[in-house]
Amino acid sequence: MTVVYTHEVAQSNTWNFFKLLFRWRGSLWKVLWPELSLWLVLYTLLSVIYRLLLNEKQQLTFENIVKFWSAYAGNEFVPLTFILGFFVSLVISRWWDMYLSIGSTEKTAVHIACYIEGDDEETVTLRRNIIRYMVVVQTMVLSKVSASVRKRFPNLEAFKTAGLINDSEQQVINDFESVHPKHWLPIYWAMALIKKAHKDGQIPSESYMLDLYTKLSEFRAGLGKLSSYIAVPIPLAYTQVVFLAVRLYFVIALFAEQYLIQSSIGDNAEDGKIRKQPELSFKFAIDLYFPFATVIKFFFYVGWVKVAESLFNPFGTDDDDFDVNAIITKNLQMGLAIVDNGVGKIPEQSRDLYAK
Amino acid sequence: MTVVYTHEVAQSNTWNFFKLLFRWRGSLWKVLWPELSLWLVLYTLLSVIYRLLLNEKQQLTFENIVKFWSAYAGNEFVPLTFILGFFVSLVISRWWDMYLSIGSTEKTAVHIACYIEGDDEETVTLRRNIIRYMVVVQTMVLSKVSASVRKRFPNLEAFKTAGLINDSEQQVINDFESVHPKHWLPIYWAMALIKKAHKDGQIPSESYMLDLYTKLSEFRAGLGKLSSYIAVPIPLAYTQVVFLAVRLYFVIALFAEQYLIQSSIGDNAEDGKIRKQPELSFKFAIDLYFPFATVIKFFFYVGWVKVAESLFNPFGTDDDDFDVNAIITKNLQMGLAIVDNGVGKIPEQSRDLYAK
Amino acid sequence: MTVVYTHEVAQSNTWNFFKLLFRWRGSLWKVLWPELSLWLVLYTLLSVIYRLLLNEKQQLTFENIVKFWSAYAGNEFVPLTFILGFFVSLVISRWWDMYLSIGSTEKTAVHIACYIEGDDEETVTLRRNIIRYMVVVQTMVLSKVSASVRKRFPNLEAFKTAGLINDSEQQVINDFESVHPKHWLPIYWAMALIKKAHKDGQIPSESYMLDLYTKLSEFRAGLGKLSSYIAVPIPLAYTQVVFLAVRLYFVIALFAEQYLIQSSIGDNAEDGKIRKQPELSFKFAIDLYFPFATVIKFFFYVGWVKVAESLFNPFGTDDDDFDVNAIITKNLQMGLAIVDNGVGKIPEQSRDLYAK
Amino acid sequence: MTVVYTHEVAQSNTWNFFKLLFRWRGSLWKVLWPELSLWLVLYTLLSVIYRLLLNEKQQLTFENIVKFWSAYAGNEFVPLTFILGFFVSLVISRWWDMYLSIGSTEKTAVHIACYIEGDDEETVTLRRNIIRYMVVVQTMVLSKVSASVRKRFPNLEAFKTAGLINDSEQQVINDFESVHPKHWLPIYWAMALIKKAHKDGQIPSESYMLDLYTKLSEFRAGLGKLSSYIAVPIPLAYTQVVFLAVRLYFVIALFAEQYLIQSSIGDNAEDGKIRKQPELSFKFAIDLYFPFATVIKFFFYVGWVKVAESLFNPFGTDDDDFDVNAIITKNLQMGLAIVDNGVGKIPEQSRDLYAK
Amino acid sequence: MTVVYTHEVAQSNTWNFFKLLFRWRGSLWKVLWPELSLWLVLYTLLSVIYRLLLNEKQQLTFENIVKFWSAYAGNEFVPLTFILGFFVSLVISRWWDMYLSIGSTEKTAVHIACYIEGDDEETVTLRRNIIRYMVVVQTMVLSKVSASVRKRFPNLEAFKTAGLINDSEQQVINDFESVHPKHWLPIYWAMALIKKAHKDGQIPSESYMLDLYTKLSEFRAGLGKLSSYIAVPIPLAYTQVVFLAVRLYFVIALFAEQYLIQSSIGDNAEDGKIRKQPELSFKFAIDLYFPFATVIKFFFYVGWVKVAESLFNPFGTDDDDFDVNAIITKNLQMGLAIVDNGVGKIPEQSRDLYAK
Repeated sequence: MTVVYTHEVAQSNTWNFFKLLFRWRGSLWKVLWPELSLWLVLYTLLSVIYRLLLNEKQQLTFENIVKFWSAYAGNEFVPLTFILGFFVSLVISRWWDMYLSIGSTEKTAVHIACYIEGDDEETVTLRRNIIRYMVVVQTMVLSKVSASVRKRFPNLEAFKTAGLINDSEQQVINDFESVHPKHWLPIYWAMALIKKAHKDGQIPSESYMLDLYTKLSEFRAGLGKLSSYIAVPIPLAYTQVVFLAVRLYFVIALFAEQYLIQSSIGDNAEDGKIRKQPELSFKFAIDLYFPFATVIKFFFYVGWVKVAESLFNPFGTDDDDFDVNAIITKNLQMGLAIVDNGVGKIPEQSRDLYAK
Repeated sequence: MTVVYTHEVAQSNTWNFFKLLFRWRGSLWKVLWPELSLWLVLYTLLSVIYRLLLNEKQQLTFENIVKFWSAYAGNEFVPLTFILGFFVSLVISRWWDMYLSIGSTEKTAVHIACYIEGDDEETVTLRRNIIRYMVVVQTMVLSKVSASVRKRFPNLEAFKTAGLINDSEQQVINDFESVHPKHWLPIYWAMALIKKAHKDGQIPSESYMLDLYTKLSEFRAGLGKLSSYIAVPIPLAYTQVVFLAVRLYFVIALFAEQYLIQSSIGDNAEDGKIRKQPELSFKFAIDLYFPFATVIKFFFYVGWVKVAESLFNPFGTDDDDFDVNAIITKNLQMGLAIVDNGVGKIPEQSRDLYAK
Repeated sequence: MTVVYTHEVAQSNTWNFFKLLFRWRGSLWKVLWPELSLWLVLYTLLSVIYRLLLNEKQQLTFENIVKFWSAYAGNEFVPLTFILGFFVSLVISRWWDMYLSIGSTEKTAVHIACYIEGDDEETVTLRRNIIRYMVVVQTMVLSKVSASVRKRFPNLEAFKTAGLINDSEQQVINDFESVHPKHWLPIYWAMALIKKAHKDGQIPSESYMLDLYTKLSEFRAGLGKLSSYIAVPIPLAYTQVVFLAVRLYFVIALFAEQYLIQSSIGDNAEDGKIRKQPELSFKFAIDLYFPFATVIKFFFYVGWVKVAESLFNPFGTDDDDFDVNAIITKNLQMGLAIVDNGVGKIPEQSRDLYAK
Repeated sequence: MTVVYTHEVAQSNTWNFFKLLFRWRGSLWKVLWPELSLWLVLYTLLSVIYRLLLNEKQQLTFENIVKFWSAYAGNEFVPLTFILGFFVSLVISRWWDMYLSIGSTEKTAVHIACYIEGDDEETVTLRRNIIRYMVVVQTMVLSKVSASVRKRFPNLEAFKTAGLINDSEQQVINDFESVHPKHWLPIYWAMALIKKAHKDGQIPSESYMLDLYTKLSEFRAGLGKLSSYIAVPIPLAYTQVVFLAVRLYFVIALFAEQYLIQSSIGDNAEDGKIRKQPELSFKFAIDLYFPFATVIKFFFYVGWVKVAESLFNPFGTDDDDFDVNAIITKNLQMGLAIVDNGVGKIPEQSRDLYAK
Repeated sequence: MTVVYTHEVAQSNTWNFFKLLFRWRGSLWKVLWPELSLWLVLYTLLSVIYRLLLNEKQQLTFENIVKFWSAYAGNEFVPLTFILGFFVSLVISRWWDMYLSIGSTEKTAVHIACYIEGDDEETVTLRRNIIRYMVVVQTMVLSKVSASVRKRFPNLEAFKTAGLINDSEQQVINDFESVHPKHWLPIYWAMALIKKAHKDGQIPSESYMLDLYTKLSEFRAGLGKLSSYIAVPIPLAYTQVVFLAVRLYFVIALFAEQYLIQSSIGDNAEDGKIRKQPELSFKFAIDLYFPFATVIKFFFYVGWVKVAESLFNPFGTDDDDFDVNAIITKNLQMGLAIVDNGVGKIPEQSRDLYAK
């Protein structure tokens, strides 16, 4: 379910944004803690081995490895930020477009309520069924896309149980033999119903009918776009490059950011080697047992890549993923409510307060 | 309320842009001063403690901490600019799209005035009420989105007091039972009224009616997009990464940018340690008590992030936020004025000056 | 007026682009010379003071300041390029969209000429007046937006003098009481005229009428977008950050780029302090009296920011600003010419050269 | 064929993304291994020659070359990341737009099924043939664009064998003499058939006919856009710059990243030269025989550029390329199934579960 | 003429991309060789003067200049890549939009062929002339935009010779007095012809007529957009900044990248000065007479800027420029062929292979 926090930053003072840091759902902390914990455990392990288990010669070798990777592990050896910037931009623009493509029955429902008048049961059923068919096709597409929808609607039987289709409709779908998806069937039913309603005079004008077709078409187009986004993801190699670059950076940092015993006594050991490493001297000025600086880098780089990873497939079960089951329910309930015979009651028209 | 300064830079000479620096509303200075003050107070506090309260050994430890963070606090340890550039771009494109989505009654009103002719009270009321219903739905949506609108219109009672709805309309809204928002109701009323007007002959052509439907639909679509932007914000983790990165940078700078006593006497103290830090030597060349350079960085980085933070939710109470209450009022007044019987008076047609 | 140079670079050889450097209107040189002159004067002043007026001890203090800022004034202390890249991108995309939003009467005029036939004076007047009203509303909006249009058309009286409106029209505008802008009035007149023409049979088909409404609506929408761009500029704080960052950079450069006397004799003065500054040694290798390198930076950074500043409000009086007065004149003249009774003369139809 | 892995990252935990690394199709490893192997072979060869075949003086020369390129081969000498970021962005936006332009017969088929009713063979044939003609034009365009489609459909004969056209149609195409492509012919047939069906009363309303024309027009426009993307690629020089920059970087790295014998004994050889290279000292601290760091760079840079190269022409035979032959087959089968007399059977209408 | 190489990289193996390097038309090599030759000549000249003509003291001065610029000429003194990235992005997006705006007669022709039936000469002439008028207006606009079209069609006489217009049409154009462009005239003719055809019953339905108007309007809008792109280019100052930055970089490199004699003997001359320049030591480790590294930079930076320069005005005579003359010819020939009485022959309808 999307994490909403917009209202809390209505005023942009620092305090409001500061408070955001203490949220858990959808937060940096929640996405980061498993990896950070793992990293810290490994880091400590290495540190302990180096300090307690290795003999002097092995320590020297270890220190050489540390120095070797230290020289590379500046953020210049693989410029993470740049690729992250472009990758996150790409993921976010796809994510937002996916959200806008899910679609809602509201607009169509309001037009149906306007165009198809009548309180008799047949007409009411007609209106309700068009909405229902829209939700059916949406559920069909989303069940391909989202694991949680697939879990709720594993097969047509589940559709029937949930009241989305009835026996007759299940029959028609099953009778239609095709290796290809049948998402278009309910849309076709809705269109055929509308055409029939036009013939029967329930929809008085051809223009109304075509307008409804356009609305249905837009709704279907959104769902089609959604399928495309899922069927043709960002190329695997790109995702792998980004994932690998960030993780390798911190695997290397396991070594590169180790604080060396030797360094804290660097001034005494005037052995030429040390003198050649002026750029490292501050790092070893105080022998910190906790790698503060690296942890901050971890928050930054892994946090940034996690934004991309959690938006990559927004139909999953992450905190920030779209709550598609709720969307389906809302689309059904609201759509049915709008087209039901409850509407049609427009308030009495009277002059407004400001009329002369 | 949006801060307008476009006219002052009609000519792009430096003087015009220079004068912009002396504005207060919506300015860098206004958004920055609380944080900058806080930072300077903490910086001074640390500086005073270090110089006056610590003994020599503690000072050495402090200096080691300073040197440690100094080595990291180049802008390379966390490349702020890059993430800021992408984040601000994202926020600005969402902000601008939100502004364009608020919508205006003007266009629809002009078409209503053209399509629905008649000076009798019933027709005038019809025209006015369509506009009013548009403003009602806009206010309903904006009251979900903006705290200030919510304050002005906390409930339907407030709508009635403000003359946006009357008893009968309030009744219909209340009678409609639904857990979902009812924003579509006034739009439905407007559409139903238009259809009735078509049936009654006030709107002579079906095409006019459908054209008005399209306008209403666009208006509603804008408001729906607005709701989406508020309901599905930029993922929390992204905002946290950016916020955290900039603030941590300056928390670290509290230490990293401290001027060390030792350094000012660095030449005398030829103790090897100092000689290894050539890249810091200039920083300590003059023992400045005010961290000029860091304050400039503060203006730059925090100012940039503040741009993003104040545009993040443009329906709040920041200087640069949209003045939605004024927009609602304008939409009502202007819409009503256009459709009122004041119009219809088109000037007498005569040959223009350039006609042959 | 826009500076056009596209044709000169039809072939992309270096010579063609090289020649562009020698243009003055709209050029880098023209926008840069005032600021560059000022900077050079201040730089020279500081240099003279340092070399001639200060005593040795003051010189040392000055040199310390220079060294202090030198250490910071690498382009890393505030990464100008990045913020400039994003800011200029934003300004250019707004600028281009503004240009496309100004609108032209040509398209509508051709359709009017097609749809409304007739050579009698009344019909000709009708056609001409629709165009005229379009230009009136354009001029009204642009006079809010552009100082030069406002100067030419300060009030309705000026509109009348210029032949844009007549007494009767001025009367109607004045009679309409409203605190809000009245830009919609002429559009309403045009639409009402078109509807009347349809009723009177001058426009035979309703579809023609609706098509003209669509054209007028697009024209008005463009002008509305234009107003939005001017009314809701890029947030002030963002503009200030960019302006400030670039200018502070060069204020600091006044000190940071000073050539020090001491340095030219650096080899002799083996005083430890010099030895700690290897990265500056080349800068002082030759005591240049003119800061070539900084002037090149000046061209680059200030030139880049100037691009943004001159496009920021393209309705001003910069060389590159849109020549809106000429656009208004063209829209009126061309529109009137198209709809006038001059047209209607279509050439005799005959077989073309390639017909079998 | 596109590599789909979206479902595997429904939840964004690291483990899911980690598993992605072990995929082969479309992976980084698959695109990289040939070049990486070649590079490693060359690297080893150079290393072996240097260590075993050269005499001491030649070794010195070799070492000088290594040092020379080492000094340049920081990622600053040619900033690869930046140009890669922009280039990959451009390629990906073109790639995605190409995918959306391929088009599907589904939407049109549903509308045809609705608009053209009738179970007699003539009407069924009409409906089927419109779909078939759409697939014919799509295949014609795609055979210009994709080598694998061209292989499957080298000429009209192959179209006939595959059942896409019949003798009569082949005749008409052959009879039409033109040096220009004839893609428009089948679209014209479809349109002419639709018009005839309207005249014959199979399509009762003109609006239906025009709606089908719009659908056909959109379908054709997509294919036209596709042709444009292929006919006007990203300028060759841009592709060359990017290709060359990345490859030259690693050609230089063949030398620049060689580990020198001398260095491992650097401390002994206090010959001044070594002392001048402090920034290289860590690289030589341990004489690694496998260039770990460079291989990581290789994964990053070449992997990134490979993303661009494989998406450059997504109609080729790469793992990530669109499976256009399958798309053609699906468009034919699904389109025919939809318009066939199988449809028309809409389920019996009954009240839904939630109806009051 | 556009350089097409898409098919050659259908498979993204390195070999295919490698082969691209050996193309000449539109290649990096072709655009770069004149400037690169010039640069190398100047570089050699300076080198020769320094080594052979200068005395020792002059050499020292020269070396000081070299060292001075060397210190600045890191890519940090003016960050070329960043401005190039943004500038090339801007140019490419404009270039691509220009290409899509040129327009084709194909779509309109197919619709004309459908809507206007009849084999009599009058109707055929009508259809042909509408197409011809479309090509006339396209040629008129392109002759303002492209030098090669202007050369082929310098005046109306040339239009007549080429069979684009006849005497009568030339007369009408000449008779219409206007200081403004007359591009709209042929469009107006086409529209008036269509209206007349509707009146005369050649176009049976008003909807067909309006559909053709829409197509003509889109065609005209594309050409209008094209004119805008040419009339309002990227601001001159921006182009100058980019051009200047890249070229100055290499003018400076003429000095900064000179190999110094002194350096090759650096170890002997232990004069303190050398010791202060550790970061240059590798550059001088081997006294290369050919500046390999700088030439690689040249390929990269100048190659990149050349991409922008050749796309800046894609209507010129560069290899990658659009072949507008061929486009005009194709539009005329193909358009005429489609609307000619050749069409109308739709193949006999028969059941397809897959029909049940």
